[in-house]
Amino acid sequence: MIMKIKELKSSLQKENIDIALFYNLNTGTAEPNFFYFTGYEGYGALAIPKTGSPFLLAPKMEFEKSKNSMIRRVYVWDKKRLFESISSILKRKKSKSGVIGIDYSSFTVEVLNGLKKSFRDSRIKDISRQCKNLRVVKTADEIELIRKGCIIADRIFMKAVREFERFTTESDVASFLEYQAKKQGLEVSFKPIVASGSGSSMPHYMPAKIPLRKGFCVIDFGVKYRGYCTDMTRTLYLGKPKSSEVDIYNMLLNIQKSAINSAIAGELCGNIYALVIKQLGKYSKYFIHGLGHGVGVEIHELPNLKLESSDKLKDNMVFTIEPGIYFSGKFGIRIEDTLAILNGKTEVLTKSPKELMLKKQNSG
Amino acid sequence: MIMKIKELKSSLQKENIDIALFYNLNTGTAEPNFFYFTGYEGYGALAIPKTGSPFLLAPKMEFEKSKNSMIRRVYVWDKKRLFESISSILKRKKSKSGVIGIDYSSFTVEVLNGLKKSFRDSRIKDISRQCKNLRVVKTADEIELIRKGCIIADRIFMKAVREFERFTTESDVASFLEYQAKKQGLEVSFKPIVASGSGSSMPHYMPAKIPLRKGFCVIDFGVKYRGYCTDMTRTLYLGKPKSSEVDIYNMLLNIQKSAINSAIAGELCGNIYALVIKQLGKYSKYFIHGLGHGVGVEIHELPNLKLESSDKLKDNMVFTIEPGIYFSGKFGIRIEDTLAILNGKTEVLTKSPKELMLKKQNSG
Repeated sequence: MIMKIKELKSSLQKENIDIALFYNLNTGTAEPNFFYFTGYEGYGALAIPKTGSPFLLAPKMEFEKSKNSMIRRVYVWDKKRLFESISSILKRKKSKSGVIGIDYSSFTVEVLNGLKKSFRDSRIKDISRQCKNLRVVKTADEIELIRKGCIIADRIFMKAVREFERFTTESDVASFLEYQAKKQGLEVSFKPIVASGSGSSMPHYMPAKIPLRKGFCVIDFGVKYRGYCTDMTRTLYLGKPKSSEVDIYNMLLNIQKSAINSAIAGELCGNIYALVIKQLGKYSKYFIHGLGHGVGVEIHELPNLKLESSDKLKDNMVFTIEPGIYFSGKFGIRIEDTLAILNGKTEVLTKSPKELMLKKQNSG
Repeated sequence: MIMKIKELKSSLQKENIDIALFYNLNTGTAEPNFFYFTGYEGYGALAIPKTGSPFLLAPKMEFEKSKNSMIRRVYVWDKKRLFESISSILKRKKSKSGVIGIDYSSFTVEVLNGLKKSFRDSRIKDISRQCKNLRVVKTADEIELIRKGCIIADRIFMKAVREFERFTTESDVASFLEYQAKKQGLEVSFKPIVASGSGSSMPHYMPAKIPLRKGFCVIDFGVKYRGYCTDMTRTLYLGKPKSSEVDIYNMLLNIQKSAINSAIAGELCGNIYALVIKQLGKYSKYFIHGLGHGVGVEIHELPNLKLESSDKLKDNMVFTIEPGIYFSGKFGIRIEDTLAILNGKTEVLTKSPKELMLKKQNSG
């Protein structure tokens, strides 16, 4: 239902690629294309010929599980090497494999070398661009899943805000967010960031088992709903902020809102970034990361909202807008939403309030 | 303290490799060698020259965080491509890079192609074997971390067993296990498996938000303590087992214990597997996965305890022993411990009881 196998096949036909091969040997999160096309997170390999039916190869120990995948034909991966097995099946089917497409951004050098041994006469072509481009524009079903995920993430986040006095440490907040997701059978889309006090000046700070510190507290959190990610950041204030701190928060919030307003179909990502830089003025040097990224089966996908990006926003893209400012060793603020462009209209999917929320700092 | 940079350097010298390069661009779990040598989980690249000091490259947004790594020299990864930056630093240092060692099992084809562009005159060599062999034998510090992790995992698991009546669904159990780990600031080493009823016949079953079913319930769980994994499986019984079920459980338990007894320094992994097969007799066809695997910064490392394995057990290795039997669509049983060989003596690090534990099946 979600997978764009048809679209991939027509792109293979256009580029004279006989077959696309994917594999997943990850114990944790599955290789994104593999999951995207199969809906299956176990070990295995996926073959999508330019004509004919795709098929999946799964080890005996995952065979039962693999039957729930979106691919109807499943073979047992026997004792042979992964691609040796695929090669045998293709020979039996008399399917062509003269030109093989693989995703260079996910294949390891080792697996590519194994593939070459099983397909000595084939030419290998990179299809990473094709895969990324397929995935950047979402189907209605995919957007619906992300929308639902955002609703759940909002609910969990606001529950944490309401019950904030129960938390003593940064880890308390992070584990609460994760636990609420797990309780509903969901994964988080990345380890939640809960960065209080001077920790907030590190964009990718990892929450520690230390008391929540006074000042800004950056919370970056998302869930994975049926394989699709959401992403949102809010910055609370623990204790009583100085008016200069409130001012800088509101400045960033206005810039974030203005960036959202300019994130319309047809706009160049680099332009939106440039606008943010201009509005940040003297603070722009404290904005030390990208403005946003696509969200889908991966937490970071296309489009890439950085200054040098020539990606153009289009209908049915889902992406984040997340300006931040970081004063090294002092404090940081980030405000992030996940958005979708639907029928030319930009819609903010994460809806937790963005006015600066004040919370008591629990003295522990 | 933990990293074996000295050992890697002498292996580079022996094989005339000028420098080893590693990178991590993962948002989740860091590339294992990168983490092993740096203790740092952020984005970046690591260069270990065969002589001279190793250095780390980290993006501006992670620079503050990277200063807590085990590598003293850290450079900011500027706007250039990752390996272009490293190439510039090496030129400045007048360091050699005629032969570069990389881990083929973790480098993607895309990153290798980028590396080649920045080092046009270099020869690239695979050092995956060297890295795996370095990591398979643990230092005393590493074993101590895994031992502590196992104690915590035991405690969490037994708390879940004691409070089992609070769980209604498989997800309840899995999220409880994860939450208990997170509350202590730890990650799980993989998504816990809680497979009840006929779900237990799938070795890599994923817990669902469905009521716990009567019968065997396989729980496979581990934590990550300061980056080091633990791994343990116990099979409970929900409800009242038939005596034939108790018999088959006890048979498997005896086989597991006997495999542990034969897992001594000097033994070939394949031999231990063959022994298990022999003892399983007519049930051996229902044992559909490996007998065990090394455990360290990765949940699956060397040694590989499969039938065809020529890996030999040695002092200071840490690995699992986990025979299982699976009757498709009916039920499955697995019993797994993490062991270490210390001064020639095999020690079981996971100590949760292994007699069949009966629990009431909550009617929901």
